[in-house]
Amino acid sequence: MSRIKEAILLIHCKDKPGIIAAVTEYILNHGGNILDLDQHTDSVKQKFYMRVSWDLEKFDIPQEEMDTHFKQEIASSFKMSWSLHFSGKRQKLAIFVSKQQHCLFDILARWQTKEWDVDIPVIISNHEDAGETAEKFGIEFYHFPITKEIKKDQEAKQILLLKEKGIDIIVLARYMQILSHGFIDVFRNQVINIHHSFLPAFPGARPYHSAYERGVKIIGATSHYVTEDLDEGPIIEQDIVHVTHRDDIESLVRKGRDLETLVLSRAVWKHIRRKTLVTDNRTIIFN
Amino acid sequence: MSRIKEAILLIHCKDKPGIIAAVTEYILNHGGNILDLDQHTDSVKQKFYMRVSWDLEKFDIPQEEMDTHFKQEIASSFKMSWSLHFSGKRQKLAIFVSKQQHCLFDILARWQTKEWDVDIPVIISNHEDAGETAEKFGIEFYHFPITKEIKKDQEAKQILLLKEKGIDIIVLARYMQILSHGFIDVFRNQVINIHHSFLPAFPGARPYHSAYERGVKIIGATSHYVTEDLDEGPIIEQDIVHVTHRDDIESLVRKGRDLETLVLSRAVWKHIRRKTLVTDNRTIIFN
Amino acid sequence: MSRIKEAILLIHCKDKPGIIAAVTEYILNHGGNILDLDQHTDSVKQKFYMRVSWDLEKFDIPQEEMDTHFKQEIASSFKMSWSLHFSGKRQKLAIFVSKQQHCLFDILARWQTKEWDVDIPVIISNHEDAGETAEKFGIEFYHFPITKEIKKDQEAKQILLLKEKGIDIIVLARYMQILSHGFIDVFRNQVINIHHSFLPAFPGARPYHSAYERGVKIIGATSHYVTEDLDEGPIIEQDIVHVTHRDDIESLVRKGRDLETLVLSRAVWKHIRRKTLVTDNRTIIFN
Amino acid sequence: MSRIKEAILLIHCKDKPGIIAAVTEYILNHGGNILDLDQHTDSVKQKFYMRVSWDLEKFDIPQEEMDTHFKQEIASSFKMSWSLHFSGKRQKLAIFVSKQQHCLFDILARWQTKEWDVDIPVIISNHEDAGETAEKFGIEFYHFPITKEIKKDQEAKQILLLKEKGIDIIVLARYMQILSHGFIDVFRNQVINIHHSFLPAFPGARPYHSAYERGVKIIGATSHYVTEDLDEGPIIEQDIVHVTHRDDIESLVRKGRDLETLVLSRAVWKHIRRKTLVTDNRTIIFN
Repeated sequence: MSRIKEAILLIHCKDKPGIIAAVTEYILNHGGNILDLDQHTDSVKQKFYMRVSWDLEKFDIPQEEMDTHFKQEIASSFKMSWSLHFSGKRQKLAIFVSKQQHCLFDILARWQTKEWDVDIPVIISNHEDAGETAEKFGIEFYHFPITKEIKKDQEAKQILLLKEKGIDIIVLARYMQILSHGFIDVFRNQVINIHHSFLPAFPGARPYHSAYERGVKIIGATSHYVTEDLDEGPIIEQDIVHVTHRDDIESLVRKGRDLETLVLSRAVWKHIRRKTLVTDNRTIIFN
Repeated sequence: MSRIKEAILLIHCKDKPGIIAAVTEYILNHGGNILDLDQHTDSVKQKFYMRVSWDLEKFDIPQEEMDTHFKQEIASSFKMSWSLHFSGKRQKLAIFVSKQQHCLFDILARWQTKEWDVDIPVIISNHEDAGETAEKFGIEFYHFPITKEIKKDQEAKQILLLKEKGIDIIVLARYMQILSHGFIDVFRNQVINIHHSFLPAFPGARPYHSAYERGVKIIGATSHYVTEDLDEGPIIEQDIVHVTHRDDIESLVRKGRDLETLVLSRAVWKHIRRKTLVTDNRTIIFN
Repeated sequence: MSRIKEAILLIHCKDKPGIIAAVTEYILNHGGNILDLDQHTDSVKQKFYMRVSWDLEKFDIPQEEMDTHFKQEIASSFKMSWSLHFSGKRQKLAIFVSKQQHCLFDILARWQTKEWDVDIPVIISNHEDAGETAEKFGIEFYHFPITKEIKKDQEAKQILLLKEKGIDIIVLARYMQILSHGFIDVFRNQVINIHHSFLPAFPGARPYHSAYERGVKIIGATSHYVTEDLDEGPIIEQDIVHVTHRDDIESLVRKGRDLETLVLSRAVWKHIRRKTLVTDNRTIIFN
Repeated sequence: MSRIKEAILLIHCKDKPGIIAAVTEYILNHGGNILDLDQHTDSVKQKFYMRVSWDLEKFDIPQEEMDTHFKQEIASSFKMSWSLHFSGKRQKLAIFVSKQQHCLFDILARWQTKEWDVDIPVIISNHEDAGETAEKFGIEFYHFPITKEIKKDQEAKQILLLKEKGIDIIVLARYMQILSHGFIDVFRNQVINIHHSFLPAFPGARPYHSAYERGVKIIGATSHYVTEDLDEGPIIEQDIVHVTHRDDIESLVRKGRDLETLVLSRAVWKHIRRKTLVTDNRTIIFN
């Protein structure tokens, strides 16, 4: 990650002439030097999307005033939806996991080796299995058993905990529980899940068994933001591996694990870097 | 393709001890030198699969007697399903196509450049568009318009034509018609189709539109043997390409075309080389 | 390709504040609506790269005056290198080929099926083999035998022919001759070659033999602009296929052919769409 | 991994008729049921390769006598090179690492989650950095500083330690030291390295810098057995990722890390499963 202090602005709105000029003018006039700009116009949906980042060194608007200022000067007139981020702040990540820990270990390794410049204040699970791993890495572990009866209350406690810890991103690292609409609503576009299949394909809990029975030659994995529609959230990242008739279910599961791990981490990384923008249940992934 | 005259034997049956020994003994005792053997045991389904090829030079059983002889000596006692092929014989391939010709051109190029050592006696279409291309390459072209009323009769005529031409393989190179059960039954495991999506996924006629709406990050293509269940036949080959939000439908279609072309040709090539074996609606693809 | 008439501007220069604002302002003030903008700043080399396209419908500067006008208004002050293109004009493509025709057939198919909206006035070869194919597709074929003695003269004639035909792009579709510096100089960044290996790797004429001997598990292909340094030109596109010990040289060559075909066509397509920019012997490939 | 106790036999020798029959007969006659057989004949080099595994339950030759017995009955007459393995025995793995720990963490995670059914008695490093990680996972850590002067002695101590621990496989998980011929000789075909590039390509210590300067569109990684010729050992596994001009060196390194991790683990896994056979500085990778 670049060491200079930078501002990142994500914008989407109805397409009309002059948006880029207006925004770049604005940054220029206030002493900002643009580091990267990536823009996309969806000519079918007549929508405009942009990610622009600039050097804050000589920028003359204080961070705390940026939002109001940008709204008055630019955003309002173009009826923009936008979000503003500053590279200084380390993001806080919470990991939800059940019994399988391959994704968990991968994320912890990226954090431990400082590949990911984030804080991980808490690991949450509906089982006790991952507790030992959390301890290994010196991270607080919370065990929230889930049953139909207590689910609502447990989620309420989880939300409190996550708020108290100031969590920015929730990673479902093979968390085999469905989050209620209430929970999702609180953390809109902040919860990232890994689905062990490509989507759409083989809905249900045992995709590798289906894949084996169907005799497919590729298996996939999909990482997406969690929405009310299970496994229907905006897709951030997908990839596949090739398989053959020689791959029994155990082998499919093994290859699938590596794929899930990689696809989830790529997706989280893009989110951390503010490269993702959600619109109409689709994602724009900036360069 | 190796120039030596070789026999190829495809076997599947219930697994039991001694199959490999029996078959390899048999070949050895009759003067055959094994060129390649690929075997697979499905421990879940307790099934045995094998492809073995051997040099015919010193082999002392005449080709025309092989079937009966192998049945008596080996196949019966193991209750084998098997098929026997000889490298000498050039296979005869028929191409079915509608309006889109990208797969057609690709196959014709492989034939023309002698990459594929096959004969292509006939191209069949429900439209006239491909006629000019067929003429370019000096291949007979037959136009069979299809409507609900005449479909049965047209297919009857097609079957006659294909039989008369001694066709071994029928390639549906983007043929946008569903073949009736009657037709499929006549050419069981000889009809190869390309489906412009991975399977299972986005059923229906416009997968790229669905892919666009869903915002997927990969699109796929699947080549399979045609069975009574539309798009549910045994999968021979699958592959994907990565796409982004920048790919509009036109771009998805374009990338999809290249993928369809490649996946279909890979599948047909494997069939030609007798590398495919169908069982329980799945394929075994030998090395 | 979008049907609206659009202008495409490719820019690179030393990075400094205000470039994007200046260019987008300029387009806006003259009635142009930006369709797509892709920008990249190389912070290591302190260089700025941009591709911007806009709708010409309401644009108030005549095409023939654009160059001078843009130079005066914008380019000079930023010391830009730039090129300007208009979507209306169909590009003229010349194909150079030797004996192997797989890339040739692929390109002709894309042209014939109208996937590529270009003209192909001429096919040039140092052998007569491809003449028949050229005739099939109704394209003029020129046979220029090459020997050390006559090479210079033959290239002179080729240049005359290409100029006379108004050729924009020269595709070396497996053309097994090294072009002289003189020739390359005339068509700087207009000659695209396919190298049957990844670069750097296995220099020399028989990479698949080297790959076999070395027992590699992947083979690659590289498409690049031709420069004075053989096989060292700016890379446009690369890809690979996985191989195993079972792939003998014949099989490697066969898999390599498909790869060469695909990689070359992808590269040419990007060039046609004005997505490529060459700088410091590297390419910027815009979205 | 299958739970049944199985024997695995790896064979290579000059090709001649009757090898498969002889070996499968032998297994059959002694009560073994073949679980998997994969054979390959290199018709160019006239060499025969085979991996065969069988169920030991009813097999009537004691494990300790197998070697001698098989030699007398079969191996001698065919002048075979062969190795025999039994699924019961857990293999012992030693990890060599320098400062970068991404491959180390990945391997430890696979061991901890029991994906890999191996023992890891020791982690060895020329730096102290990885000591803390080793402690986390409760594995003995040995710090062997390396300088030109003491290298020979340090390696001697390492060999003693590895022998004492009964190590079967040495994984160089980004170990930035060149092992001397003496060391390699002791652990022939037991030392697996990950090279952060495809081979052959960009020799030297900073391949990602070269890749950036050259503007490549793919970067690769190669896992191979370590031989006297640095980076020239038999290749076990290779793969690539696509990159663009937007990937600066930091980004190339980051993508390269994921690739190295995956490619190394795939290679080690194949070795553990006895799927690899080395011959003429190439590997045969069985199914």
